[in-house]
Amino acid sequence: MSTPITISRSEILEMEKVTRLQLINSISGFKSANLLGTVSKDGQENLAIFNSVVHIGSNPPLVGCILRPLTVPRHTYENIRDTGWFTINHVHKDWYKLAHQTSGNYREDLSEFEISGLSPQYSEGCPAPYVAESSIKLGLTLEEQHEVKANGTILLVGAIQELRFPQEVQEKDGFLDLEKAGTVTISGIDAYHRTTRLGRESYVRVPDDKARRG
Amino acid sequence: MSTPITISRSEILEMEKVTRLQLINSISGFKSANLLGTVSKDGQENLAIFNSVVHIGSNPPLVGCILRPLTVPRHTYENIRDTGWFTINHVHKDWYKLAHQTSGNYREDLSEFEISGLSPQYSEGCPAPYVAESSIKLGLTLEEQHEVKANGTILLVGAIQELRFPQEVQEKDGFLDLEKAGTVTISGIDAYHRTTRLGRESYVRVPDDKARRG
Repeated sequence: MSTPITISRSEILEMEKVTRLQLINSISGFKSANLLGTVSKDGQENLAIFNSVVHIGSNPPLVGCILRPLTVPRHTYENIRDTGWFTINHVHKDWYKLAHQTSGNYREDLSEFEISGLSPQYSEGCPAPYVAESSIKLGLTLEEQHEVKANGTILLVGAIQELRFPQEVQEKDGFLDLEKAGTVTISGIDAYHRTTRLGRESYVRVPDDKARRG
Repeated sequence: MSTPITISRSEILEMEKVTRLQLINSISGFKSANLLGTVSKDGQENLAIFNSVVHIGSNPPLVGCILRPLTVPRHTYENIRDTGWFTINHVHKDWYKLAHQTSGNYREDLSEFEISGLSPQYSEGCPAPYVAESSIKLGLTLEEQHEVKANGTILLVGAIQELRFPQEVQEKDGFLDLEKAGTVTISGIDAYHRTTRLGRESYVRVPDDKARRG
């Protein structure tokens, strides 16, 4: 690799819009690839791809998602606010192109399930639609939300109410093998990747003479 | 794949602690792999691995990170609060095992740079240490923070002040090729993966008869 270039904040702010969008969306590293399933209070189903789902905590089990500013109507947000429920469904390498189609700005009476050809699926424990084709899926209730003042994006925090996955993707210690499940990862706003596991690293045990006390 | 199993919230809450930790940390999908570099007001350097860096916005350029509850001392958080600065450095496939070593709980006078063998590097524009070995790195100032009430985790929002990367990893439209940069992705708390790009999907243009108005 060549000597790195350095780009200052003022140079970023002066960039052409699409160049900046592509660069800054790439710079944080790889992202999760999930479809959020919701239904409006009138029963209209909605499905939207998100690359910003993050782990918040395991006990109680919490997951977060960053939503774009509410300067235009956002069906996913409105449906979660109105019904209190949503699903998170992993995007699979065999149909990631279908999932990407949900990023279009469609007429309000059209469901992205129909647009993409993916199938809504309901469980007794969750009133929001799952994606039938997804290997790993979560049913959640809205726990809390925080608005980032700097740009109006919203951190939505969901409480996990239900999990669904094929038994064979879970290893003995509880870990899910996302590669076996066919889950992909995203970089930038439009690049999809499959993965190859390099290894699982053991918990780091610090020798006594180097360990922090108390 | 077999018929999925369904796990309820009450079953999650009753799980053995490590099983729940592994499961819930896997369930959100793939994660970014970054080292956060900071320095205390006394000049002690700190380096810590994080799998929770997320994109917040491109204009202005903002990146977020989820920090665990402050129930025990967290050097990364304290240093950012005290100095206002931190760096984010992509973890590379050739030395991810060194990066993982920073997750140990070391004596306060030991620097994780020395522990891991990775090298601190300073630029004129950023008082926090970068990781010399990282291909892609960001220098940031603390913009704002939000506490998740449900479990005390903190969303830290950083304003990008500086970016450094080798010119050859950037494509013409601004996108960074993270595979060319050697960046890895994480699943769960301890699995590291390299990636293979499946494709970049074009912006979804909705035909007029299906497009949302206004």
